[in-house]
Amino acid sequence: MESEPIHDIAHLGAVELFTPQPDRSRWYFQDVLGMTVVHAAGPSVYLRCYGDYALSTLKLTAAAAAGVGCVAWRATSPAALERRAAALEAAGLGMGWSNGDFGRGRSFRFRDPDGHRMEIYYEEERYKAPAAERSSLRNQPQKYPGRGVGVGRSDHLALLASDVAANRRFATELLGFQLREQVIFDEGRTELGSWMSPTAIHHQLAYVLDVKRGHGRLHHFSLWVDNREDVLRAADILRENGIFIEAGPAKHNNSQGFYLYSYEPGGNRVEIYSGSYLVLAPDWQPVTWDEQQRGAGTYWGGALPDSFIQYGTPDIAAGRDPKDPKEAPKPSVFF
Amino acid sequence: MESEPIHDIAHLGAVELFTPQPDRSRWYFQDVLGMTVVHAAGPSVYLRCYGDYALSTLKLTAAAAAGVGCVAWRATSPAALERRAAALEAAGLGMGWSNGDFGRGRSFRFRDPDGHRMEIYYEEERYKAPAAERSSLRNQPQKYPGRGVGVGRSDHLALLASDVAANRRFATELLGFQLREQVIFDEGRTELGSWMSPTAIHHQLAYVLDVKRGHGRLHHFSLWVDNREDVLRAADILRENGIFIEAGPAKHNNSQGFYLYSYEPGGNRVEIYSGSYLVLAPDWQPVTWDEQQRGAGTYWGGALPDSFIQYGTPDIAAGRDPKDPKEAPKPSVFF
Amino acid sequence: MESEPIHDIAHLGAVELFTPQPDRSRWYFQDVLGMTVVHAAGPSVYLRCYGDYALSTLKLTAAAAAGVGCVAWRATSPAALERRAAALEAAGLGMGWSNGDFGRGRSFRFRDPDGHRMEIYYEEERYKAPAAERSSLRNQPQKYPGRGVGVGRSDHLALLASDVAANRRFATELLGFQLREQVIFDEGRTELGSWMSPTAIHHQLAYVLDVKRGHGRLHHFSLWVDNREDVLRAADILRENGIFIEAGPAKHNNSQGFYLYSYEPGGNRVEIYSGSYLVLAPDWQPVTWDEQQRGAGTYWGGALPDSFIQYGTPDIAAGRDPKDPKEAPKPSVFF
Amino acid sequence: MESEPIHDIAHLGAVELFTPQPDRSRWYFQDVLGMTVVHAAGPSVYLRCYGDYALSTLKLTAAAAAGVGCVAWRATSPAALERRAAALEAAGLGMGWSNGDFGRGRSFRFRDPDGHRMEIYYEEERYKAPAAERSSLRNQPQKYPGRGVGVGRSDHLALLASDVAANRRFATELLGFQLREQVIFDEGRTELGSWMSPTAIHHQLAYVLDVKRGHGRLHHFSLWVDNREDVLRAADILRENGIFIEAGPAKHNNSQGFYLYSYEPGGNRVEIYSGSYLVLAPDWQPVTWDEQQRGAGTYWGGALPDSFIQYGTPDIAAGRDPKDPKEAPKPSVFF
Repeated sequence: MESEPIHDIAHLGAVELFTPQPDRSRWYFQDVLGMTVVHAAGPSVYLRCYGDYALSTLKLTAAAAAGVGCVAWRATSPAALERRAAALEAAGLGMGWSNGDFGRGRSFRFRDPDGHRMEIYYEEERYKAPAAERSSLRNQPQKYPGRGVGVGRSDHLALLASDVAANRRFATELLGFQLREQVIFDEGRTELGSWMSPTAIHHQLAYVLDVKRGHGRLHHFSLWVDNREDVLRAADILRENGIFIEAGPAKHNNSQGFYLYSYEPGGNRVEIYSGSYLVLAPDWQPVTWDEQQRGAGTYWGGALPDSFIQYGTPDIAAGRDPKDPKEAPKPSVFF
Repeated sequence: MESEPIHDIAHLGAVELFTPQPDRSRWYFQDVLGMTVVHAAGPSVYLRCYGDYALSTLKLTAAAAAGVGCVAWRATSPAALERRAAALEAAGLGMGWSNGDFGRGRSFRFRDPDGHRMEIYYEEERYKAPAAERSSLRNQPQKYPGRGVGVGRSDHLALLASDVAANRRFATELLGFQLREQVIFDEGRTELGSWMSPTAIHHQLAYVLDVKRGHGRLHHFSLWVDNREDVLRAADILRENGIFIEAGPAKHNNSQGFYLYSYEPGGNRVEIYSGSYLVLAPDWQPVTWDEQQRGAGTYWGGALPDSFIQYGTPDIAAGRDPKDPKEAPKPSVFF
Repeated sequence: MESEPIHDIAHLGAVELFTPQPDRSRWYFQDVLGMTVVHAAGPSVYLRCYGDYALSTLKLTAAAAAGVGCVAWRATSPAALERRAAALEAAGLGMGWSNGDFGRGRSFRFRDPDGHRMEIYYEEERYKAPAAERSSLRNQPQKYPGRGVGVGRSDHLALLASDVAANRRFATELLGFQLREQVIFDEGRTELGSWMSPTAIHHQLAYVLDVKRGHGRLHHFSLWVDNREDVLRAADILRENGIFIEAGPAKHNNSQGFYLYSYEPGGNRVEIYSGSYLVLAPDWQPVTWDEQQRGAGTYWGGALPDSFIQYGTPDIAAGRDPKDPKEAPKPSVFF
Repeated sequence: MESEPIHDIAHLGAVELFTPQPDRSRWYFQDVLGMTVVHAAGPSVYLRCYGDYALSTLKLTAAAAAGVGCVAWRATSPAALERRAAALEAAGLGMGWSNGDFGRGRSFRFRDPDGHRMEIYYEEERYKAPAAERSSLRNQPQKYPGRGVGVGRSDHLALLASDVAANRRFATELLGFQLREQVIFDEGRTELGSWMSPTAIHHQLAYVLDVKRGHGRLHHFSLWVDNREDVLRAADILRENGIFIEAGPAKHNNSQGFYLYSYEPGGNRVEIYSGSYLVLAPDWQPVTWDEQQRGAGTYWGGALPDSFIQYGTPDIAAGRDPKDPKEAPKPSVFF
């Protein structure tokens, strides 16, 4: 039975983002994207999308610089949590147990090879909507807010890594994620990005090359809307609110996702996302793209700009502003 | 570890439908819905949606009456196949091994308590598109055909059962499906329907009460399109082709799915479907609807007609034609 | 030149609705539908859609009963205004000149044969958005509000009339509207409805038979959204806000419009509308539907309920509540 | 009455395109875009969209080079036709009367100041669908074909002109079109483009600067689809059929249109278009964009490439291939 796939991680649980503009970042997620604030503690506020079953899926923490904090994964069972903790500990990545963040039980903390902080937990508090936010649909955890973009649920996370292959092996071998797609250049020698998932969702974790050779940095955090019209509508809303749109709406070749990338006021890249395809095959054969197949990373809708490769948070390129038109829209060679 | 969820079934594999109008049924699936015929053998043709990774997901077999033939489920691994075969055999439902239908390897056949024939297999042949049908997207198994409705993939199956509870227990306990939603009336005494899935897709198998007390009958087979606009467009196409639309486009309360039910020329009910929500929680709490909450089974868009309860295939109501306007559109009390 | 079409009316200008629930009606139009209040005077508030070029297109007036107040039409020129005033005066329908309502110049008041009050004006104040509501698009009069349904502009009005033919002749002959579609039953003897327009918009004024033989009553007021996904989204928003949905989302056969009918809290029927088709032919041949062609008035998506025929405002059916499930959803025979 | 607007042109009637690849161009319009061929005569085939009321709205003529042939406008009445003929004759632009092209009556031919050939006619044959193409909707001239993109109707035409202002004056003063939007640079000295219409459709004729100083050239011909999802779907279909996509799907700032530009195999630029806004105001104030406001000509979705300015048909830039990646996607400075 050794060869059977690991089913120990159920899904991406919650993501923490750091922001040097906490009030403006909260406005972006709450008023522009339509998320709901459910809790505040110290420098952090906790938010949720109306379709998330969990109490909270995004933690915004005031900090000196933008970036990603702890990434939490839910285990499929208490035993699965113990198994993953043991495996991560054995691999030398363990950072010990905690009592869990807001709404979650006992959690095992660890780092990925690139240094991003993560944790696994099993116990999760479900959201119980107060009367004013209760949906008329019994299977919807919260009333559709009808405010701003109206993001439906947390979808996935893309992290920068100086060594994509090492981090991809960590995610597939230690966490049991299925490898879905890869961009590999130079006749197989340069792994530019790998997209993986513990669920039928195309990817919930991507590692893409950190061209600045930083560590522990964020490429983007992605929030789902139920259809592409909502992505188009989101573009209007972002423009009407003065938010910088880096790319899209357009269709990725990788993942077939329909994307819209903006920078929240703290500087983190946030994707509003729909479309894509589900993967159900237990023996999925990863799709690999080389230089020629990859093209501009976009199936149609305008090439991804150079900033899409160069910019991550925290930003380690001194004196550079991706919103500066002189910097931005050269078509990217690989994403 | 005994209490961990079973992860042995990967997804719904293929469905066989019987039709007394094989040429017209083929026209419906191929020209109106836009599926592709990949094989023919004896009384059967094998079809696929452009987004299905497998060679074929629908088998149409000429027969004296409409209905459902064998329902095939893919296992997550060879070992998982053996485990499920052993468990089904032990439960007295086994019907023995076969060499597998077109495109699939060794399969274990069995019956559900209501008498529907099913099988489990692990080996699956992937579709290799010929040059003329190859997509410009490397991660798409087949070119988008641009013909008719353009259904993207097989989604789920709803079977009629004279004892919903017994079949629901079979699916959850023996196949390991997660129970997602239920309709239970009479203060918990009458289980009218249960929706289950082995994947993040809301349901891939439903059992709904066979009010005619038949056995082995079909309620509907459901095909996915990527967005609700495609469902609306499908309604135009069905009307322009003279296909009887039973209900929709409208939104279910159960599953939040956006539905359009028509009868293919052989008489089987086919759903064109989008929307709905994914379920990722390993400890999902089934949503239960009673008489009052259930209402007309529709969140908005017009109540489901009485035929939605009364009609299944094979049709055991002699002399009755659900397309006859005198028979059809009384609002349903429970679906 | 006598035979040339009259081009004196430019478009539907503004509609006044009476409401016995002024606070709740304002909440419905402002918070649920996303309109903007621009002015208040006495018992009235003035609202606009974000895409309306005029200052205001809806006037809500507190009153003892629901219904329609004055319907204002914009003339194509000062001379056109004089010509129409003269023609209406000559026809004995004139009610004299006024200085015009909020945002409009000198207006000529008149009644249609059924008794609905109307006026024509030429001078119209354009909306100048304050800084906080200014769009980032120079050709958009107001920022997309991202609140609730987000209706884009006023579209059309349907009035009940005890003699449809007389009112249809009034609109085509005296106002110069082009007749677009008609429902005529009993081998041409009973004119149940006529749809007309002074613009390329399919209809801006409809007369439908008042089966209660009232006078001056409203069937519905219709607001446009830019796509059908917005209509589907609106259905969620109406349900989440406890608004009664009478019919839709579904597609009319007449007009091909995609409709969603709800009752605003004051009782007036309001349509959220998209799709339809433009009419550009100067010699358009009206499309006529008889009993058989008309069917249930819906191309697909669920028959219109009996209340769609029976209910109008003010409601003259004592003791009757269209929201009562015992009253409502019998399929309509002709709309 | 002198100052009243001219209402003599009803709408854009038909456009003739020249193609050096007649078979491939026919395949593009018929199989990829889903138009219907209704007639062939000599070097020409006549096509229609399923929603066009006229017999034919596009004439494809085999020729040595791509470009635009005769552009036909329908008059609002026989008298209007005579009035426009007299005015054009008096302006020295008349080319005399003809018996009219396929499906149209007596026509007056003329040239615009840049040299594009045009004609006005009043009599128009309506399309009578044969049984197999008859729609189940009485108000739809033809069955929705369900083939390829499924363009719904002809929308507008953009012509290149060496002197935009002169041609804009011709269209507004002699044809009576309403000026909707303009791009004017250099503090009012350089008119780069003007968008005009005789209907509520935002523009049916645009003149944009011919930077190559050619004459009588085409910028693009635009076909309408009913919603933005159809534009996104069209992008997939174009990609799957190997058609070069120059720009989009994206949203123009000018017109708010949602666009997708491709080159048909003969070389002419064709737009698949939806969204935009209707103009009903009789005293519409043209919206003017200067260098700063105009930006990249796109509200969101990727800047228009340099070829959008440089390329027209016939192509007068020897040795240059806009499909060559070295040539194409530098962001445009003004469109």
